[in-house]
Amino acid sequence: MSRQIYKADRVKRSVLTRLKRLGEIVVSDIENGKFPELRIPARTTRNIIYDEDLRQYVLGSRKIERTTKNIRHLRPFAQLLWIATFAKQLLKTGKSSTLRDTYYVAIGEGIDFDDQNESDEMIMQLECLLDHPREDFHIFPEERASIYGDLIIEYTVPGFRGKRVDLSAHPDGFAIGPALTTAEFVKCNAELVFVIEKGAVFSRFVEEGADKKYKAILIHTAGQSPRNCRKLIRRLHDELNLPIYVFTDADPYGVHIASVLIHGSALSAHIKGINVPDAVWAGVWPSDIRRYRLPSMKLTDRDLKRIKELEVDPRYQIDPWKRELKEFWKIKRKAELEAFSRYGLDFIVKEFLPERLAELQKR
Amino acid sequence: MSRQIYKADRVKRSVLTRLKRLGEIVVSDIENGKFPELRIPARTTRNIIYDEDLRQYVLGSRKIERTTKNIRHLRPFAQLLWIATFAKQLLKTGKSSTLRDTYYVAIGEGIDFDDQNESDEMIMQLECLLDHPREDFHIFPEERASIYGDLIIEYTVPGFRGKRVDLSAHPDGFAIGPALTTAEFVKCNAELVFVIEKGAVFSRFVEEGADKKYKAILIHTAGQSPRNCRKLIRRLHDELNLPIYVFTDADPYGVHIASVLIHGSALSAHIKGINVPDAVWAGVWPSDIRRYRLPSMKLTDRDLKRIKELEVDPRYQIDPWKRELKEFWKIKRKAELEAFSRYGLDFIVKEFLPERLAELQKR
Repeated sequence: MSRQIYKADRVKRSVLTRLKRLGEIVVSDIENGKFPELRIPARTTRNIIYDEDLRQYVLGSRKIERTTKNIRHLRPFAQLLWIATFAKQLLKTGKSSTLRDTYYVAIGEGIDFDDQNESDEMIMQLECLLDHPREDFHIFPEERASIYGDLIIEYTVPGFRGKRVDLSAHPDGFAIGPALTTAEFVKCNAELVFVIEKGAVFSRFVEEGADKKYKAILIHTAGQSPRNCRKLIRRLHDELNLPIYVFTDADPYGVHIASVLIHGSALSAHIKGINVPDAVWAGVWPSDIRRYRLPSMKLTDRDLKRIKELEVDPRYQIDPWKRELKEFWKIKRKAELEAFSRYGLDFIVKEFLPERLAELQKR
Repeated sequence: MSRQIYKADRVKRSVLTRLKRLGEIVVSDIENGKFPELRIPARTTRNIIYDEDLRQYVLGSRKIERTTKNIRHLRPFAQLLWIATFAKQLLKTGKSSTLRDTYYVAIGEGIDFDDQNESDEMIMQLECLLDHPREDFHIFPEERASIYGDLIIEYTVPGFRGKRVDLSAHPDGFAIGPALTTAEFVKCNAELVFVIEKGAVFSRFVEEGADKKYKAILIHTAGQSPRNCRKLIRRLHDELNLPIYVFTDADPYGVHIASVLIHGSALSAHIKGINVPDAVWAGVWPSDIRRYRLPSMKLTDRDLKRIKELEVDPRYQIDPWKRELKEFWKIKRKAELEAFSRYGLDFIVKEFLPERLAELQKR
């Protein structure tokens, strides 16, 4: 067993310290004969501001007060404290949970949540209070992305602590769950990361040797990237200094997958460090449809509605986002990553990839 | 490099032989001055019969004739031959593809498909003609299941051929893509397989050591099991003689996930060997909702409609299926696998699992 102090251990200690402080506030109020109160950062659109340094949206200074003086606050106050207790249990036992799982445990313990939305809300309030994403107190997404590449990791989870695995050993990819998310990076020969929305294209990159040709780690997000995968990508960038290139379909959903990865999601503006501001959206751009004469489909009414929504979103006011949304209106069409296969299965890796990387690196 | 003959190689040889025979029929017809003709098993509900030996629905003896004498048949005839050519290319180059990818390659080569449905249909006709599932000619699903357990595999795909990996090395699971699907089983200390619909429950099983306690391989299907995962489960049963237990939500979708795994899907009645007749649906049964007093939700109108559809499906005319569908009408409620967490995170593995396995093994 390694005696090294893992990053995951430092995170755990930080969360436990903040949980303890939270408890002390409540206890000391009671001991001083005061009604316990908490001030929780307000997670409203009016309290979201763009932080130039962090290059992401963050919460402003507005707080909501939760005071046990007010009988209407008592229920959410108690719910929040229960979530905090559960978070502590997860950390102490080294177990993990999900939003849904947490809701069921709460029901079993007689905590009065109307539905899962209510317990989800409390988990997000705890994230605000602790300034840690819920993954740091072991509440993980249900969805799984996967990873493949020249990187050796060391686990920190119980039962696997100190064990290592070489992520180039399995070409279909290693699922990214609690164990991989909290692992240490031990040795990396890769020089960049390709993040890929589609399983078929991930397999194509493996089969055409894109990982070797570009010394690339490949990540398959399987649609919208789960939060823990976004955090992992951020760590690959911050800790290993790897440039990140993101490949999605050229439709409003693909565009938004890239954007959320880079700018963060509106829903997690209260959480720092799970977006990757330096990541680059590398394609398929809507403008690639004309440029590469890709097989394409008509944008549906639903697509067009979604594009309109994105156009008023602050994250889409600069290029390439603004330019590429405009392109949608010009061509009224969308295309998938697999569309490059019209030029043969190897075209995307042998022709498109070097062309696009050269172009992006020139900028 | 291993000089062993892999099963994947035998499959490849079988498909190539049948592809060649298909070509020879066409060529010899032409050389004999005849219009080439093919007789393709009819994939209609009227031609589906239950095979008692195989314990799955299979196609009956009705065939459709495709003859180049008929000008309306010329187009699908040519499309089918193109798909056969593409299948041969995939096998010869060791590359893989998906239904969608294949459609784009077809477009690029000027093959006249109206849309992907049409190329999908031709791929299924080729499956019928060759009596091989499309995975055997390297057309894989886009979706990824994952696997974890005490099993060492050896790859047969180019670039990894002869290399081995221990599937107990990564507790979040190994993604099941083309490489894992075609791998050889080298060494297995596991004694059974748990197939699990939900990622949260897969992680729970790992964290509570269900794999060690039961010497179990764990498979996470992430919803409906992709076809190549079903095939892999079938192989774990046939080649390693492992009993298979399936865990799904107690809702009409969960029930059907278990049923398709066991009985096969209507869409793939023309394909043998991708269902697992000996697999056992181990829960959550709708009757478990009352028995374990699980937190549950009201069945929606959509759920009720789906249950009615299942009730007229021939696969649901015997127990436990029939009995459990009836239970839905009695309680009008559904529950998720995670609902056991009401009794604590470890309940599902420590209490429910041994109880259910004892019960099933007694029968």
